[in-house]
Amino acid sequence: MIRIYDAENFPNPRRVRLALKEKNALDQVEFVPVDIKGGELRTPAMRALNPDTTVPFMQLEDGTVISRCTPIIEYIDLAFDGPSLTGTTSRERALISMMNLRTEAGLVDAAADYFHHATAGLGPDLETDQVPAWGERQKRRVADTVRYLDRTLATQAYLAGGDFSMADITAYIGLNLATALGLLPEEDLEHLRRWKASVAARYED
Amino acid sequence: MIRIYDAENFPNPRRVRLALKEKNALDQVEFVPVDIKGGELRTPAMRALNPDTTVPFMQLEDGTVISRCTPIIEYIDLAFDGPSLTGTTSRERALISMMNLRTEAGLVDAAADYFHHATAGLGPDLETDQVPAWGERQKRRVADTVRYLDRTLATQAYLAGGDFSMADITAYIGLNLATALGLLPEEDLEHLRRWKASVAARYED
Repeated sequence: MIRIYDAENFPNPRRVRLALKEKNALDQVEFVPVDIKGGELRTPAMRALNPDTTVPFMQLEDGTVISRCTPIIEYIDLAFDGPSLTGTTSRERALISMMNLRTEAGLVDAAADYFHHATAGLGPDLETDQVPAWGERQKRRVADTVRYLDRTLATQAYLAGGDFSMADITAYIGLNLATALGLLPEEDLEHLRRWKASVAARYED
Repeated sequence: MIRIYDAENFPNPRRVRLALKEKNALDQVEFVPVDIKGGELRTPAMRALNPDTTVPFMQLEDGTVISRCTPIIEYIDLAFDGPSLTGTTSRERALISMMNLRTEAGLVDAAADYFHHATAGLGPDLETDQVPAWGERQKRRVADTVRYLDRTLATQAYLAGGDFSMADITAYIGLNLATALGLLPEEDLEHLRRWKASVAARYED
């Protein structure tokens, strides 16, 4: 069985869990909890598995380790049945890959950079190399990105076009993180709000 | 014909050109030169095409614009014949995607961040939001990444295993950039050196 090392309620782990939920495959993998705040990712044993020192990462049955959300979700998309999350034609695949990267860099990673660099983050034991001015710069990038997403969603249902994709999962998790950190601009972004409600409805249990 | 907007000798444009070269398809696309130093990427017309304000970006015959190297190379890999650059099995695809991301973030982007934040970069008209301490932090990340790549290449010919892939193009361009910027650690990294010579040999004309 595929193992997923993660911490359930952290943003990037949630991206992979939502992808598995789209595939109705949450019970077809084994989750291994990692004590992030206790520094478990930086132990020699964990570094040997995943030099990125991040969660989530996936271990296949042959021992191969795949870290970072996008490769993991790409793998899940091919390994399990259900609607495609990464596209089928070359044009769809490229659009989804681009929107996923644009949203990851401009929203998930930018909000996480704000958290790790411009706030106390995970605390002084783990945040040993902070650059506060970088955190503030990334805060501005979050605002720019959500305005761009709102403009994009004015003319299409989902971020890569008419169909839900991996890019929507990335943006949904990023938007929740940015909201929790108080990073959203004050104006009403009506297209983004409509889209967020439609994605949230997929995950109501 | 596919159009590629780029600036020939910049690092990220070179990644796409090397991918096209692997596919023997450099003459099957139209290159449109962009005046980066003149600020052309930030004109309203260019921002409408590509809100990332980066090169390269690709415009398909139907008008669709795809920016960022990885989606462009994924598209090229499917659109043209020749050896696979992104893998064929789900395991290969995930490994290549991970190593490409790891190398992009830790080498290409980290070296570019050093250039744009900790040096004069492209000059004061374009470098309007510098965070020098971030540039210095990314310089340390470059050194960590090249040491990691050297360890990886001690036991395999290429970054994602036995076969050349998109991840090797990313690392090769990143290593050239880091070398030009004087960011490499002083010790001899013999596995990386051997790998670099083998990649360089592919592009000697």
